[in-house]
Amino acid sequence: MKKSLAEFIGTFWLVFGGCGSALLAAGFPNVGIGLLGVSLAFGLTVVTMAYALGPVSGAHLNPAVTIGLWIGGRVPSKEVLSYVISQVAGGIVAATALYFIVTGNGSEIGSFAANGYGEHSPGNYSMQAAIITEFIMTFMFLLIILGATDDRAPKGFAGLAIGLTLTLIHLVSIPVTNTSVNPARSISQALFVGDWALSQLWLFIVIPIAAACVAGLVYKGLLRDNS
Amino acid sequence: MKKSLAEFIGTFWLVFGGCGSALLAAGFPNVGIGLLGVSLAFGLTVVTMAYALGPVSGAHLNPAVTIGLWIGGRVPSKEVLSYVISQVAGGIVAATALYFIVTGNGSEIGSFAANGYGEHSPGNYSMQAAIITEFIMTFMFLLIILGATDDRAPKGFAGLAIGLTLTLIHLVSIPVTNTSVNPARSISQALFVGDWALSQLWLFIVIPIAAACVAGLVYKGLLRDNS
Amino acid sequence: MKKSLAEFIGTFWLVFGGCGSALLAAGFPNVGIGLLGVSLAFGLTVVTMAYALGPVSGAHLNPAVTIGLWIGGRVPSKEVLSYVISQVAGGIVAATALYFIVTGNGSEIGSFAANGYGEHSPGNYSMQAAIITEFIMTFMFLLIILGATDDRAPKGFAGLAIGLTLTLIHLVSIPVTNTSVNPARSISQALFVGDWALSQLWLFIVIPIAAACVAGLVYKGLLRDNS
Amino acid sequence: MKKSLAEFIGTFWLVFGGCGSALLAAGFPNVGIGLLGVSLAFGLTVVTMAYALGPVSGAHLNPAVTIGLWIGGRVPSKEVLSYVISQVAGGIVAATALYFIVTGNGSEIGSFAANGYGEHSPGNYSMQAAIITEFIMTFMFLLIILGATDDRAPKGFAGLAIGLTLTLIHLVSIPVTNTSVNPARSISQALFVGDWALSQLWLFIVIPIAAACVAGLVYKGLLRDNS
Repeated sequence: MKKSLAEFIGTFWLVFGGCGSALLAAGFPNVGIGLLGVSLAFGLTVVTMAYALGPVSGAHLNPAVTIGLWIGGRVPSKEVLSYVISQVAGGIVAATALYFIVTGNGSEIGSFAANGYGEHSPGNYSMQAAIITEFIMTFMFLLIILGATDDRAPKGFAGLAIGLTLTLIHLVSIPVTNTSVNPARSISQALFVGDWALSQLWLFIVIPIAAACVAGLVYKGLLRDNS
Repeated sequence: MKKSLAEFIGTFWLVFGGCGSALLAAGFPNVGIGLLGVSLAFGLTVVTMAYALGPVSGAHLNPAVTIGLWIGGRVPSKEVLSYVISQVAGGIVAATALYFIVTGNGSEIGSFAANGYGEHSPGNYSMQAAIITEFIMTFMFLLIILGATDDRAPKGFAGLAIGLTLTLIHLVSIPVTNTSVNPARSISQALFVGDWALSQLWLFIVIPIAAACVAGLVYKGLLRDNS
Repeated sequence: MKKSLAEFIGTFWLVFGGCGSALLAAGFPNVGIGLLGVSLAFGLTVVTMAYALGPVSGAHLNPAVTIGLWIGGRVPSKEVLSYVISQVAGGIVAATALYFIVTGNGSEIGSFAANGYGEHSPGNYSMQAAIITEFIMTFMFLLIILGATDDRAPKGFAGLAIGLTLTLIHLVSIPVTNTSVNPARSISQALFVGDWALSQLWLFIVIPIAAACVAGLVYKGLLRDNS
Repeated sequence: MKKSLAEFIGTFWLVFGGCGSALLAAGFPNVGIGLLGVSLAFGLTVVTMAYALGPVSGAHLNPAVTIGLWIGGRVPSKEVLSYVISQVAGGIVAATALYFIVTGNGSEIGSFAANGYGEHSPGNYSMQAAIITEFIMTFMFLLIILGATDDRAPKGFAGLAIGLTLTLIHLVSIPVTNTSVNPARSISQALFVGDWALSQLWLFIVIPIAAACVAGLVYKGLLRDNS
């Protein structure tokens, strides 16, 4: 119960902080934070939750992370479903709060911070490019999570390393897909945009989860201490 | 006494560094640091004070933090008033120093770095949007402070996590309210601007303190070890 | 074998993340991450690999680093060749993945993220300036790696210090050579660009390796504990 | 001797990296790193040296720091002179290297990265504003150094806290004086600019050292454990 609450709050924070920075501050006239600021914001949501709520639930904040860690043997099967439900719920509540704030100066939400490919990619990248990008990014994200939380890694630094990985991922891939690597984040935005965002949503659920599973197997099979 | 001095110096630094970066460097022609630089500056004031003066006073630098930690059972009642007075005084002295520097090239202070809503919000966001934003931001700020300084959290990292939370908060919310989450910071600027800044000041005192109290209760009741 | 895999994956990540951010996000209209974002991305590839795979292979990700550490007495001779081969291979695979993504919106690769001097320097800096810059940067990079991983240095922080050194190096030197300090990174890009990039490639192999060797000797001879 | 070499190399790195980023990358067309990137670069020179050479010499890299720590009782009198000489020499060698690189595309050095006030302040701030700014900044810098390296502070984090303080200082004060807080850095640039830079140099020697001395006394007298 405490773990579910932590995942709910944590994923709320990831979507509120990450997508919120994109919606409110990225393109602010003259002094906007740009994609660099958005990348930093997404990463810092994870850094801050890792130290604040990591001791409670592990601060996954992402169904692909929970599933990848489960495949990697780090999470018991019985916890997966409640983690994922809490994450998706937290994301949706965050999107709702953002809806009220963003429209609070008379703006419309437009494409919100939804993920997309083809004509809905920020830089018009193809579905193929989107699949390669989301796969590599989520694969590496999980590999880093598994490595940085391994017993042999220096204690205490995992939260920084993992959060800054999300910053790095966004620094590269926002132009391609607006960066997902997180189905809960993608679902939360697509529900408010509807239409094309819902019809492209499959990619941002299937690819991150598939990549996370492969990463779990690769780490367990090839990179662990006793392999 | 040593604690009061530490809170005075620390809040001086928060206002001098955070508001100072906004006033002097954010909009500098061509190479200005923008809202991203200001967000980083506010966060670094807390990071640096946490490591330098945290062992002395805890480096709250913010009446909402002191009150939220008191509700959360982390600060004794008898210290609250002297902390808050030191913080407000430190902020005002910093604003005075900034006044002399900012006007040192013939500029006027304009709206200084005051917080506002409606027509005084940087992005013209409504009072309702301002209340939602300041409430969520201060609530999460306190939750992270309580979590990162909990016994079960990794030692030494709290200063980084808490300071970077303030960076994240600014990355999202400067366009909405110019970001307060800190009554001492808001008071220091409003005193120099007067007029609308003083008449809107209530929001930046009431909402952060209310959110901090709720966070203290939520953490104590639902997320602590023994809950 | 596990070490080779770690160096392969790690150098893949350095090129994919670092060069990828330059190719996809640096010049994105209005909100591009610029050279500051690219500098951060390169550094974060090393930070994240240091914590994730450092315990496996040391996370060198760079032939000059491996050779400099070998000269400095930190790496056994028998490991040098397999490290370098894995690094070059990882870089090339990353460049291939980037090729498919970058061209996924119909763009051409142009000069990719290749290193160059003279008319192929981003800021038209001469070969002499390029040599001075690459030499100093790689020399300092190795000195910092040797110092931060020395027994007397604080435990756990080396990954941050070393990764952020790469960020610093890029903050200064992208305009001069597009910043190499890493033959594997340079080779990976030059193979796709061909032509001038191949004919200037020698500098980005010879100078970083020479500087790394000098740094290894200086540290071992003058700065170690028992010197 | 090893300590002098460390201070020489470290101050070389501070000037080469910090001033170098300003001269080469700050104003690069379209993707320049701006004052935010320069601020980060200065800070990272200290972060990286603190972890690499801190165990050798303490990594002061700044005569004001050495003198302030001496007043604060942290450095023996007999070491002060050799530290200061090494620092000034390292800065001058770095400026020489930068001179050759910067002019390597036919550019002139102009005002290099010299510090100034009045008409030589980047934002035309008066001498009075420059004195207030340099005094406060150096005072706080020393207070943070003394606090973060105090026995009661968390181990290992001082290098990050102190380096990021220099980033924060630059985020605020580059527009006022181009930011000194370090006589070695100011001397190195003024020697190449001559003229007005030499005649204004006194301020960037006298004020930082005076502020550092006051900080040493304040910390020793009012904030130490046994005070």
